[in-house]
Amino acid sequence: MFGEKLRVVAIGVETFDRALQDTGVPFIRLDWKPPAAGDTDLVGDLFRIDTACIDESGRSLVDRANREVFDRILKGQPTLRRILPAHRCIEGMTKTTILHAGPPVKWEDMCGPMKGSFLGAIRYEGLAKTDGEAAEMMASGKIAYGPNHARNAVGPMTGMISYSMPVFAVENETFGNTAYCPINEGIGKVMRFGANGPEVIERLRWLEKSVAPALDEAVRALGGVNLKNIIAQSLAMGDEMHQRNVAASLNFHKAIAGPLHEALKKRDDGASVAAFVASGNEQFFLNLAMAASKSIMDPCRDVSHSTVVTAMSRNGVNFGINVSGLGQRWFQAPCLKPEALYFPGFGEDDANPDMGDSAIVECIGIGGFAMGSAPAVVRFVGAGGLADAQRYTRDMGEITVGRNPALAMPNMDFAGVPTGIDIRKVVATGILPVINTGVAHREPGIGQVGAGIVNPPMAIMEEAVRAFAEKYAR
Amino acid sequence: MFGEKLRVVAIGVETFDRALQDTGVPFIRLDWKPPAAGDTDLVGDLFRIDTACIDESGRSLVDRANREVFDRILKGQPTLRRILPAHRCIEGMTKTTILHAGPPVKWEDMCGPMKGSFLGAIRYEGLAKTDGEAAEMMASGKIAYGPNHARNAVGPMTGMISYSMPVFAVENETFGNTAYCPINEGIGKVMRFGANGPEVIERLRWLEKSVAPALDEAVRALGGVNLKNIIAQSLAMGDEMHQRNVAASLNFHKAIAGPLHEALKKRDDGASVAAFVASGNEQFFLNLAMAASKSIMDPCRDVSHSTVVTAMSRNGVNFGINVSGLGQRWFQAPCLKPEALYFPGFGEDDANPDMGDSAIVECIGIGGFAMGSAPAVVRFVGAGGLADAQRYTRDMGEITVGRNPALAMPNMDFAGVPTGIDIRKVVATGILPVINTGVAHREPGIGQVGAGIVNPPMAIMEEAVRAFAEKYAR
Repeated sequence: MFGEKLRVVAIGVETFDRALQDTGVPFIRLDWKPPAAGDTDLVGDLFRIDTACIDESGRSLVDRANREVFDRILKGQPTLRRILPAHRCIEGMTKTTILHAGPPVKWEDMCGPMKGSFLGAIRYEGLAKTDGEAAEMMASGKIAYGPNHARNAVGPMTGMISYSMPVFAVENETFGNTAYCPINEGIGKVMRFGANGPEVIERLRWLEKSVAPALDEAVRALGGVNLKNIIAQSLAMGDEMHQRNVAASLNFHKAIAGPLHEALKKRDDGASVAAFVASGNEQFFLNLAMAASKSIMDPCRDVSHSTVVTAMSRNGVNFGINVSGLGQRWFQAPCLKPEALYFPGFGEDDANPDMGDSAIVECIGIGGFAMGSAPAVVRFVGAGGLADAQRYTRDMGEITVGRNPALAMPNMDFAGVPTGIDIRKVVATGILPVINTGVAHREPGIGQVGAGIVNPPMAIMEEAVRAFAEKYAR
Repeated sequence: MFGEKLRVVAIGVETFDRALQDTGVPFIRLDWKPPAAGDTDLVGDLFRIDTACIDESGRSLVDRANREVFDRILKGQPTLRRILPAHRCIEGMTKTTILHAGPPVKWEDMCGPMKGSFLGAIRYEGLAKTDGEAAEMMASGKIAYGPNHARNAVGPMTGMISYSMPVFAVENETFGNTAYCPINEGIGKVMRFGANGPEVIERLRWLEKSVAPALDEAVRALGGVNLKNIIAQSLAMGDEMHQRNVAASLNFHKAIAGPLHEALKKRDDGASVAAFVASGNEQFFLNLAMAASKSIMDPCRDVSHSTVVTAMSRNGVNFGINVSGLGQRWFQAPCLKPEALYFPGFGEDDANPDMGDSAIVECIGIGGFAMGSAPAVVRFVGAGGLADAQRYTRDMGEITVGRNPALAMPNMDFAGVPTGIDIRKVVATGILPVINTGVAHREPGIGQVGAGIVNPPMAIMEEAVRAFAEKYAR
């Protein structure tokens, strides 16, 4: 059939390889997939976005808008200003307001841990004495609840923020906005994993009465703490700031150690607070990284024509994203379960689906996107060695606008973290954002059962591309 | 001349490559060097050691002895027990005893910074009012001076230890011996770099009166601090514990934060001590790593037939090593100048030759040997990226007995650090131990001017092999 010796390049469907192997014809396989997994409607949408969204000189309005968002991310200067009760800084917090992680969800649709957290938060605020009373308040509409993200706030896992709960107030100095996140409670039975027994409430009270005032005094004495510097330093120290905050937590303590010592000297409970902040909680900085990331991403919202993801968030039922050019609309679909390493005695059957606002850190390029900096994490989640860790980070380079040189990774020859998730690139390449996450037990009151890696469902990325084409490229 | 098409493998002298290139004959070059750089006497010594040092079954006595030393290194459990004035724990310290870094050196032969340190130490002890008086005491034999290494002690750079100076006392719990090292003074004008002005003396006094008693109280309250755990953790956090102790210093502070807070609460100078220990000095842990390494290496001395290096040390004039099977004998030759990155305004002409006992850390496999863990360091010393850092560590694997699994490097897929320098392998391969180091100005009183990488002179490795052959394989 062919006159000369064949040299074959195989692309696409892999079943032909076998036939080639059988014939003995030498071939190389090209690692190529059709865009949008060959979905011709989606390919059409991507094509329309590329061809319709152009200025008079034929330059892409989308690329320009994404560059603008990317620049805003790079310019962000998150500074921790205060640690205050939620009602003193978050707008519209009444005694009966409770905020939660993820896109909006109704009481009756919530997962187990989220329900457990709500009941605990209501009792913590003294609004009910028993879980029964608290559930009744939820069912009868006496509690005004809604997503953190709608109030410039974020929270890990179930993400509870109630009236009295102290929150970090992180100002983005460049844009003047402020974002909020509660204090990380530490490990064991904690509210963010749905636990709500007496010791959980007691710890929250201690955070409110002892830890928060001392931290606030120390931070005010310093005139604020720049969190971007701490994130940058910690990327050189094995952290990616989602699953691993070992160095970042120490670096934060280092930044406030002097004034914290002064603030605690006067207090009887000083030693326990000192020990908690200095060494009690290796994930202490996670909540600061989240508030910093939220303060960086909020000014990136509502940029016309931008396809950059401004929030990824999960409520334990649905995974939702916001996209800059598409405003506050949530694109959502059922959460996946993380690929995780489980604590002894637990397994996948115990796992609640993916949960929490923490994936905001991946939006600025840390967490799973900076896995190359944290080979210890990749082993923890069962994925091998340094090369695997670096591969995650390189893959994220395929779906982002650019690299943030201020967040350089020594382990990646000082390349910046991949920054600004572009839904066009996600859909075209089929590469999903990778998120490092903790795993909660699906029953309330039990807590964390593992940690792992998770992706958003591809469906929400596709839905966002369709909506974008609909709005900008009809 | 040859009947068929040539396929050439080139080994050895590289000048032939050009000739091959000119003829167009394809060839591959094998990266091979003759053992001992082709020195036939040395090759003979290595051969005699291999063939003469065997038991009745023909097994190598040297390999067995080195395995014993390697096991002792791995078994070492360095625990910080106390922080005490030198005279209360180091044997034979009188008011007029001063210990220094490196092999023995006479007053008149000392380099500038070493002389500056001696004069400062004499004034610090109140033995003289002026440098002139102090120099007179040195010249007239009124000061008994000698190497730290002879008194179970080590010190960075000039390495001064005098009567009143507080030292870390680190016990190797497995073998019961204790090693000593002074407290790191921080950066700027400091005695270890030869500075000796009033502010240097004042800081030493503050370390003695304020820092040391508080640290001692905190450490005693804990019943000791295991330093091996801190070293292991910090290898996952970008440190190699010689040039970079950023994480290790924080991890040490984390270990003592609670009791240190209690100890400092009662003191007026508490805040300054808290700030110094928590955040004032990123090299704080270096001196603890040195004491830990010394405590690990001392029980490895005097193992018959072992070719493992038990100390590498420099006095600013000579580089000296001890070898286990060759007792306390110093093999020494003039120090090389480090390949360094200099601080602005300084250059190689300002540099003093290599100095300090700090290379004891490389003897247990950290420092330059663990460079793969610390890509930030390799860039600082001008050597590129992660691959360069990993190459240093892999090269050190060629000249060591084995890997220490308790000191695993996530950046090297959790391989242990290369441990136990074998002088036979150094001479046979021509690969010298790599040492990360600070660089002092050659004039006293100026301080640190840079940081870089240095090797021992090959001559002392060769001399040690010759002496070993002489003793064990005549």
